[in-house]
Order: sequence, then C-alpha cells, then structure tokens
Amino acid sequence: MNVCIVGASGYAGQQLVSLLLLHPEVDKLFLMASSTAGARYSDLNPAFKGRVDDTLLPAADLIETNFVKENAIGAVFLALPHGASMPYAQHLIENEPDVGIIDLGADFRIHDVKEYEKWYGDHTCPEYLDRFVYGLPEFNKDQIVGSKTIGNPGCYPTSILLAMLPALKAGVVETDRIVADSKSGMSGAGKTAAVASLFTEVAETVRPYKTGKHRHTAEIAQEMAIAAGGKVGLLFSPSIVPMSRGIESTVYAAVKPEKLEWAKASILDYYKEFYKDAPFVRVLDSQPETRNVRGSNFCDVWVTIDEETSTLVAMGVIDNLVKGASGQAVHNFNLMFGFEETAGLKMMALYP
Amino acid sequence: MNVCIVGASGYAGQQLVSLLLLHPEVDKLFLMASSTAGARYSDLNPAFKGRVDDTLLPAADLIETNFVKENAIGAVFLALPHGASMPYAQHLIENEPDVGIIDLGADFRIHDVKEYEKWYGDHTCPEYLDRFVYGLPEFNKDQIVGSKTIGNPGCYPTSILLAMLPALKAGVVETDRIVADSKSGMSGAGKTAAVASLFTEVAETVRPYKTGKHRHTAEIAQEMAIAAGGKVGLLFSPSIVPMSRGIESTVYAAVKPEKLEWAKASILDYYKEFYKDAPFVRVLDSQPETRNVRGSNFCDVWVTIDEETSTLVAMGVIDNLVKGASGQAVHNFNLMFGFEETAGLKMMALYP
Amino acid sequence: MNVCIVGASGYAGQQLVSLLLLHPEVDKLFLMASSTAGARYSDLNPAFKGRVDDTLLPAADLIETNFVKENAIGAVFLALPHGASMPYAQHLIENEPDVGIIDLGADFRIHDVKEYEKWYGDHTCPEYLDRFVYGLPEFNKDQIVGSKTIGNPGCYPTSILLAMLPALKAGVVETDRIVADSKSGMSGAGKTAAVASLFTEVAETVRPYKTGKHRHTAEIAQEMAIAAGGKVGLLFSPSIVPMSRGIESTVYAAVKPEKLEWAKASILDYYKEFYKDAPFVRVLDSQPETRNVRGSNFCDVWVTIDEETSTLVAMGVIDNLVKGASGQAVHNFNLMFGFEETAGLKMMALYP
Amino acid sequence: MNVCIVGASGYAGQQLVSLLLLHPEVDKLFLMASSTAGARYSDLNPAFKGRVDDTLLPAADLIETNFVKENAIGAVFLALPHGASMPYAQHLIENEPDVGIIDLGADFRIHDVKEYEKWYGDHTCPEYLDRFVYGLPEFNKDQIVGSKTIGNPGCYPTSILLAMLPALKAGVVETDRIVADSKSGMSGAGKTAAVASLFTEVAETVRPYKTGKHRHTAEIAQEMAIAAGGKVGLLFSPSIVPMSRGIESTVYAAVKPEKLEWAKASILDYYKEFYKDAPFVRVLDSQPETRNVRGSNFCDVWVTIDEETSTLVAMGVIDNLVKGASGQAVHNFNLMFGFEETAGLKMMALYP
Repeated sequence: MNVCIVGASGYAGQQLVSLLLLHPEVDKLFLMASSTAGARYSDLNPAFKGRVDDTLLPAADLIETNFVKENAIGAVFLALPHGASMPYAQHLIENEPDVGIIDLGADFRIHDVKEYEKWYGDHTCPEYLDRFVYGLPEFNKDQIVGSKTIGNPGCYPTSILLAMLPALKAGVVETDRIVADSKSGMSGAGKTAAVASLFTEVAETVRPYKTGKHRHTAEIAQEMAIAAGGKVGLLFSPSIVPMSRGIESTVYAAVKPEKLEWAKASILDYYKEFYKDAPFVRVLDSQPETRNVRGSNFCDVWVTIDEETSTLVAMGVIDNLVKGASGQAVHNFNLMFGFEETAGLKMMALYP
Repeated sequence: MNVCIVGASGYAGQQLVSLLLLHPEVDKLFLMASSTAGARYSDLNPAFKGRVDDTLLPAADLIETNFVKENAIGAVFLALPHGASMPYAQHLIENEPDVGIIDLGADFRIHDVKEYEKWYGDHTCPEYLDRFVYGLPEFNKDQIVGSKTIGNPGCYPTSILLAMLPALKAGVVETDRIVADSKSGMSGAGKTAAVASLFTEVAETVRPYKTGKHRHTAEIAQEMAIAAGGKVGLLFSPSIVPMSRGIESTVYAAVKPEKLEWAKASILDYYKEFYKDAPFVRVLDSQPETRNVRGSNFCDVWVTIDEETSTLVAMGVIDNLVKGASGQAVHNFNLMFGFEETAGLKMMALYP
Repeated sequence: MNVCIVGASGYAGQQLVSLLLLHPEVDKLFLMASSTAGARYSDLNPAFKGRVDDTLLPAADLIETNFVKENAIGAVFLALPHGASMPYAQHLIENEPDVGIIDLGADFRIHDVKEYEKWYGDHTCPEYLDRFVYGLPEFNKDQIVGSKTIGNPGCYPTSILLAMLPALKAGVVETDRIVADSKSGMSGAGKTAAVASLFTEVAETVRPYKTGKHRHTAEIAQEMAIAAGGKVGLLFSPSIVPMSRGIESTVYAAVKPEKLEWAKASILDYYKEFYKDAPFVRVLDSQPETRNVRGSNFCDVWVTIDEETSTLVAMGVIDNLVKGASGQAVHNFNLMFGFEETAGLKMMALYP
Repeated sequence: MNVCIVGASGYAGQQLVSLLLLHPEVDKLFLMASSTAGARYSDLNPAFKGRVDDTLLPAADLIETNFVKENAIGAVFLALPHGASMPYAQHLIENEPDVGIIDLGADFRIHDVKEYEKWYGDHTCPEYLDRFVYGLPEFNKDQIVGSKTIGNPGCYPTSILLAMLPALKAGVVETDRIVADSKSGMSGAGKTAAVASLFTEVAETVRPYKTGKHRHTAEIAQEMAIAAGGKVGLLFSPSIVPMSRGIESTVYAAVKPEKLEWAKASILDYYKEFYKDAPFVRVLDSQPETRNVRGSNFCDVWVTIDEETSTLVAMGVIDNLVKGASGQAVHNFNLMFGFEETAGLKMMALYP
C-alpha cells in the first residue's frame, strides 16, 4: 500500500517514517509538510541520510491536486499541530472516501464539539466528529476495524487510560475524584524553539505544569466516563522530567467500600485477564519503568490497593512517540486494513 | 566553634563540609568516617583538593577517646546510614551534655519506638527518642532553639510537610486519604555502588518505587498527625527521575465541603502569610520547579484548589542534599547556638 | 538457523537479543550466561517481558554437553568480558568445526600474542589467533565471507578506524603521531556496579581517562599499520560524557606536504567514493553527531583538511552497542552465512 | 562599592548576580538589560525570588543619563552578546574614567583589529583595544592590578590557555601544530531559543562543530603566541556534550626532541611550581573531571608526556560560567580594586 504522511518533519512524524519504512505492507511512502516543504528530508532529519533523501512535498497538494488518486494512496497519516488536521481530513472524507485517515492530533478525539472548543478553540468541521473512532485498540478494536477515520489518542491519555479503564469498567472505584499524576519526557513538546525547552532549562529539573488545566483532561475524562458509565471527576497533573522520551502515569482513586475485599485479593489478576489478548499491554508484577518500553509500542501496566488508605493505585508507562503517538497510529492502520496486528511494531525497547 | 562531622564522605556529608567551610561561626572542622577512615578527604572527593586535604579520622575516636574535650568540639553532625547514629548519639548524650547533636539520619526522627521499629528495625536507645526535637524549623523553631539534640528531617518529608502542614493546621482538608506523589533525583540513594543506580539504568527513565511502602511514610504521617490534631491516612508514592539533585512533591487531599469557599478564595494568601517570616520558604504564584532551588536552602511552595474535584493540591520543591539534609542541619545548628538564622546558607540556586 | 548467545544478559548481549529476535534468518535463539544462569531472562531485562521469558542456560553446557548438535546450533555469539571467550572458542573450534563463532570480546582481535598479553594478560589458546578474521566488514569483507571465526572489533576502534583507514590507505598523512580523541557514553562500561559509573557520578561531567594507556590502543594500531603499510605512532585519548550510547571519535594527523594540495581538493570525495558500496557507512558533508546513529548500525563519517595547520581531521560516530558491538556482529553473521548484508539491521536511529 | 551589571538576565549575567550578591565588598547591585528592561528580575530568573525582585533598568540609561555618578557606581560588568559592549565601554572610558570596566564579551580581547574583524565583524572603537588588559589573572596579574579596563577571557580559551601556556612558556613543544579538542556543556550557547539547543536535540548526543573555524581561535592563538614568543599554528575543535556546565579541553603538541627527557621527568612538577601561588588553578596528579569544578572558580589542570608518540598532552577543566566567565570577572574585579583575591569566590564545587 502507498501511504502519505502529512507533517513528516516533527518528532511524531519522523517516528512514523521510521516505523513505516520497515512496515511489511507499505510499498511507497510520500512525505508532506507545510513550512518545511521543499527541503530534503534528510537535511532536516540527518538520521535518515541515505535512506530518505526525498524532498518534502507541499501539504497543500493533498487538497489542491489529484495527488491521492495519482499516487494510489491508501492511507493518510496526519501528524500536525492541534487544529491543523481539519482541512485535510475534511477534504479526504468528502473526496476520497476509500482512503484511511489517521489523525495523530486532537482534532477528532473529542466527540462533543462544545467540550472540544472549550479546550482547543473553534472546530471547522464538527459534523465529522462522530464519524471518528477513538483509536485506543485495547478498548475500541471492533470499531477501528470497521472504520476509515481514526482519532489517534494523545500521549498522556494513552498511559492513563490503559492504566485505569479496567478498574473503571469493573466499577471498583469512586469516580468523583480520580487523580492522575504524570511524568513526561520533553519530546511531547515537539521540535519547536522555545527557551523553556532548552537543554539548559530542562536538565536537572522537575517541572509540574498546567495542573488541572491541561487540554488532555477533556479526552481522558471522556473515555473514563464511557468506561465508568457516567461522568467522572478528574484531576490531571503532569510534570516534565529531564528525559526525551517516556511517560509514567500514576492514577489514584478511592476503592468503593463494598469492592475492597475483592480488589485487595484480585485486582492484579483481573488486569492480567483483561489484557491477556492485547499484544502491546503487559501487566507486570512489580512497578513499571519507562526505560523498558522506550522505542517500543508496549504499555507496561501495574495496579495495587494501598491498604492504609483504601486507594487503588494504577500505573502505566509508554514511549510517548510510539505507543503514545506513531506506534499506536500504525497499530490502528494495521487493524483498519486487516494487516497482522503487530506488523511493523515488533521491536523491543532500546535499552540502555 | 569547632565542629565535627561523622560520615563526611557520603553525599550529605560532603555537602555539609562545603557549607560549614564557609560558615562564619565555624572555626575548625573535624571530619570522621568509619570505612573510609585513614583516607585523604580530597582523594575521596577531588572537588575539595587544595581546600580539605585532611585525613579522615576514625569515627570510633568519638566514643573511645577524649576527642570532644581535647578539641573543644561544640557540635557534632551525624551523617550516617539509618541505624548507625545511635551509639554516637548515646555516648554524647551521656558523656558530653554540652555538645549539640544533629542527626541527619532517621534514628531520632520517630517519637514512637514501635513505629520506628516497624520500618527500620531495632532501636538501641529508645529512651532518648523523646529528647530529640524534629528539626523542621518552620514548625518547631522554639523547641529547636532550646535543644541540644535534633533529629534532622528526611528529604521527602521536608518537601511534603512544608507543602502540606499549613493546610492541615488550618483544618481545610479531609485527612483520611492524603496522597503524596514525589519525584526525586538519584543523590538520595547515596554514593553506593548498585546496578540500579548506574547512569545507564537511570538516564531516560522514570522509576516509581515502594508505593505505599517507603520508610519515610512513618515520619511524614507523624508530623501530619501533629499538625492535623489526629491520625491521618497517608499514601506516599515516590519516583526516581533522571537528575542528581532535587525533589518535587505534589500532595493531594479532598477539601472539606464547609471550607471550600474559603479555600478557593484564600488558600494561597494564607500560605504566604503563614510563611512570611520563614527565610527559606518561598510561596510562589505559579508552579515551582526544582532547578530554582538547586544548591540553595530554599523550599518553593505552591498551593491551589482544583474546582472540578474540590481537591487541594500543594507542591513543594527542594534540593534534597541542602534543604532536604545538610542545609537544614546547618539551619538547626544556627538556631541551636543563636547564630544568625541564615548564616552559611545565603547562596542562591546554581542555575543552569 | 538456530543461534546461541553466550553472555546474553549484559548490555551487548541484550542488544544482540533484540536484533536477532527480529532477524529474518534466525529460527530459534538460545541464551546462555554464567553468573546469571537459571534466572528468567525477562526478570533480568524487563524490557523483554512477554517476548523472551526463557530461563538462561548455563554457559558451561556449551562445553560440557552435546548442546550444539542437539539443538542444531549454526552460530555462537560470545558476548563476554575480555578473557572469558577463550575456552568456548577453543572448544567449538576443536569439536564443532561447522559452527560459526563471533566473539564480541577482545580475545581474538589481536594477531600478535605478545601484543595481546601486554595489554590483556595471558592467552590460553594463542594457536588460534591467526585463524580469526578481524570483523570490520568495510575492510575485510572477503575474508569474513570465507571464515567461521570472527573477532568482532571494539567500539572505540570501529569509530576510529572507519574514520581514518581510508586516509591511511591513500598515504595522505604522516603516521608517526596520529591522535585519536574519543568521547563515549557510559554503556561501554557495562552493567557492573561501580561508584564511578553511578548516575550521580556521571551526569554533568566530562571524564577523560587512560590517555595513552587504553587497551584498545593495541587493536587500533594493529589495523592502522595494516592500512598504512607500516607501524604507526598512535595516541588514543578517550573521555566519558554523560550519555548512555554513542561514541564520537576525532582523529588528527599531519598531512604529508606532497599530498596537501590533493587532500585539500579531494579528500571528502575520495572518502565518498571509498565507502560508496558500504551499506552502513555514510560520508557526510558536515560534521556528524552521535544522535543520528543511535540505535542504528550506521557509522557517520566526515573528513576535512585544516589549512592553518595542514592537519587532516577525520570524525566517526557510532552507537557503541550496535555498530560498535552487536550490530557489527550481526553484519559479520550475515556475511559469514551469505544472508542479505543488511538483514536484521535496517532500523533507523531512535531519535530524539 | 556599588556595582552595575549590563546584561544581567543571560546565563553569565545571572551567575554574576549570584556571585556579587554574596561578595563582601559589594554594597549595592544595579541590574540592567536591553530587551528585558522593565521586567522584574525574579520573574525572568525565578531562582532569585525573594532576593532580587528589582526591576531591570534600561541599559541605555548608562549612556544617556547621569546614572554612574548619581549612583556612585565603582565598576561596570558588561555581560552582553559579542559586539554589544562597545558603545557602553566607549562611553565609560570617555566620560567616567574612574569606573572599572570588565567586559565579559569578546569586544576587547583581541589586540589586533584586523584579527578581530576577521572573526567578529566591524569594531566601532578600535582605538581602545590596546587599553584593555586580557584578564587572565594567572598570567597578567600585574597589568590587571593597574588597569581599569579588562577584556575577560572566553570560556574555551580559559580552559585551553591555563592548560597549555606553561608548556609554551617553557619552550617544550613545537608550535606549528597545536591541537585543542574541547568538550563543552550547553550553557555556553546562552539562553536563546533555537531548535539545535532543545533538550531533545542535545540529550544523548556528542556534537562536534566549527572545527578549525570557531571564533575563539583568534583569542587562543593570540595568547599562545605571546607565551611562545612567536606565531603558533592552532587547530581548535570543540564539541557539545549533554550537560549544562563545564568545559574539558585536551591540548596536544609535539615535544621538541631536545626537551623530551626533561619533559618526561619534570613536566608535572614544573606545572605545580608554575601555579603554586595561583589560588584557582589546581595541578592534579591524575586526569581532571569537570564535575569537580562545577559551580566553583577552579581550573583543574593535568599534563603528561605520551612516550609512544613524544606528544605533550595538557588538560584543563573549568565551569564555563564561573572560571570561564563570571567568576573570572569577579577575580579581575578583586585585583583591580585591591580586594582579597578570592573574595566572593571561595565556594567549592556543587557535587553531585
């Protein structure tokens, strides 16, 4: 299959190029960008020298020309800043109904346009929000298989939801005060020049930010509510730590008194059973670490009940650029087109 | 004043040497060690070459010889692994009643011997536990001023207690489920060879550990209970992040419904007023970062109320080797002997 | 083909496991260790959980039992500390002549036993030194293709030799004073507990060490002499820098006066031509960086002539665990058995 | 004495503020900036909250108003980008002859205006170049003591010159090919937003740059020529490594045959004797590391003769923001005004 990536020069974009270059079902890869169009890809990302020396095509071609048909594109990945995917998605839906669309941004993750606009600003094609499936394969696999339009989950949400949704589905915890404390590497901030992202500003610091005010709150709360069968109270507090890749999320919630005995005895086994067929979730017997998933598509999960306070503690670790972005996008691509589920995603963590 | 440090070659010990070398009231510094006795200090810690080239004295001399009187020692700092301070402290209490003792370990922080032994093992002189003051100057200054025996707080506890005690004193939060999520650099693990502490094992990872089972739980819960006027339910969950120095602690607790309006309007101002005379606590208007206190004795604190979940979120950041260990020990030393409160502790953060 | 790795739990070993797991020609992987035999592989290296949960076999089985024949082993990789490969290699040479042996240690890299013993200590089977091919495929491909016994190059030597051998072959530089200044990440020191390798001792430092006295000097000088057609004077000065993977080597040598004009005009083109068929060497137009090869098998090379001092400056960067160890071993394995040269080695750098 | 810092918000500027705040001879500190004038200093540099909450004054006031006299300013430190100091220095020289000027930029380091303009562009007041003393106290102390105008050395030059000048003064080495290979942390690049300086672009990489073309070449070669008594051939090759502070420079030069025996026997002792009265240079018996000087004003130096190649290898390590910039500026300030030489500079390295 021929595949197109729009936004190939950012961190998520280049991770996607790396993965799709080795994907057994991908024939030809077309790389597009807006501000960097015209540049040689390997000049922007010298790691690709000798392998991807193509010139970046202008993203506008996707809309303004007959590009998709001429190049027999089967799928388009949109790896763009939040808000920038809408016109491409809209064009493809309206003109190229057979093309699979996987949006790595937030534009099509939130089903309720009011909730979207509260956090992100105007949406230019809200009529298509319902058409998009939230691409978390461990929970929505059936819908993904039958869809051509996927809103790929955010990085923080992936780590939090995979840790917490099984507990919510089981009705084990109170849902009025779920606290998610996440620690993230810097690559989530993208390849954008900013003083706050300088090496000298990030090394040797822990930087909590946007506590209770981060935009991913909308997406996490939406999916938690679906699993819990009703609105949840979510407090999401992320921190930047001095590393490039990786997110560790710890989620705290009060155990319902009537579920306490069951949870103490069985919660970890329940999680293991829950994920037994999920090729990329590993339920561990001990606390997880981000280095064990770095560069891989795994999410390592752990859960326990703190007896002193009757609190459920669930942890999830991912590589934010792989399972938290491009790897999960490839997973969705595989499901959408009936490829082997783990095709192109079999690599282990790069460690140390 | 002549001063003696027992355990001068570890990370807390050498930080103490750095601080006391420049302290205006310290005349002569005597350095002791057990396993490294006989070595030249600057061979073990080459940063001190040309300034501290003394040979480390055997710590046993403190007990077995007339060392204290012969050298007119006024104060002894014990910077030893947990459990190792007891014999030195006992000897000094029983034989050198005029000498000030500041223990940087955990041996004399816990007032209840059963609680101590639950977490740390046998205590060989429990009869002296009550004599020690918990050396958190922002809360116990009056007692410290009149004491010769100080149990210097742990690093995690310092960051958590300074963030949370004002709220507990004000009776703003429910106390049955207080969650403290801390992120720490590696120097807290000390200068001990271990695979898990290798650069290659710590770089590019977040490593949560001992959730609900860390020994500092005892000390934090003890001080929280004093402030709250009754037992608290505490869940403490620390993580290692890839840096050398610094701890960021975020503490979550439910606001009492009857205090919610007051807390939303006034909590930050209350904290500012609370700490207005504390020279080393800075209550910030925005979220704190560890780099702003690195190498200094400051604790930066921030507090907010999350309206969505009616949760109080309090954050504290410190340098674990300064405010979390040796700087706080010097602060206690200053108070104990009536020196200027900030003597030897005026340095700003080393940044970047 | 069934393959066996002896020493699978160290850093080079686990990198080899990662690569061979995805290698299209490898059927079954047998993992052996000495001190960690009996442990579950994924307990030692949790990154492999769910993929490699085998128990580590005792390495002695390779010698003491009929292991090779019973399991139809076609190749054995020895990823052991220097000096430990000899008995396994000797046994296999004498008893299993059809098995390919690739030694990642130094035991069979040096052809002259006196030179070996000067740097490494006694050699127990010097009669086999000549049988081993120095496995640097860019220079010794023909010999590797016809051999069953490969001494895989060291990490520093790979980066230095690929940068400098073309110049030496061309006779461009004086050979009495070749200076190689290398900067390396910490993973080269292995997964061994040592205070000097702690995160807290390596972060935020540059640590030059063993200037003029590093054991890799022997191997580098040997291969340089072959290329230059006579003994060379080599000064090798390595430094540790605060990262896990990667080596950058800068090599300085005086340009011969009679070659100066040619070198100024043509040296970079000559290098490009020299390596035009080498799939893993990329000659760049600008200075290389280690991050562009991290996790990949590439060596990026650059060369220039400093006109002010008539000095040739050649740079080579590699991932020390891939091109500097396990990736190069797989490359040799591919050549030895006539597999596609890049099989199992097509991955791009993991960046950022 | 009242002191003014122009350019107080950059990395060198804030290091200077930290040092002068604790300097026993400084009464009042006035902070100026151009683009950040009007901002509260502690808003730009939150590490200073509670200690330096002043508003940054407009740098233009120094020229356009009667600022110096009105505030009884005794010394002005210029911590500005290269090229920006000239108008301030010119104004002060012409109107405030009693004020001491210490320029931390390159504007007044090069004595030959042609050489200056070759590397840096136009100079607007070349007539004052000769008046400035190159502020390397270990070599120019007498001139500094009698001067009011100091060009403070660059960071790379400080580390290279302190390592190499004694050998050049002794006439031990050939001077036609001196190679200086330096490894630096990122803070040398300043607090400027640039993609190449992002955490994600600098972590886990070694990045050699501007080999043979770095502007510091002019300054290093100038001072080497003075010491050697004639022009030298210098090849300077710097690399960025993943840390914030610190430079390690290794300098290689051929030993003159007639000096070889002496050098082998005596070079280290000669260096120790040479620097015996220099309070900030420590000649070590083993290779130096940047962490031992981090945050201090020390330069640790080591020298050896490689017998294999008859090469002198000299190493120098500094903290680029202290001994390589602001600490050295304070040292010059102390000498200029007859203060204790180490006043304000007694701190040990912050380690780990």
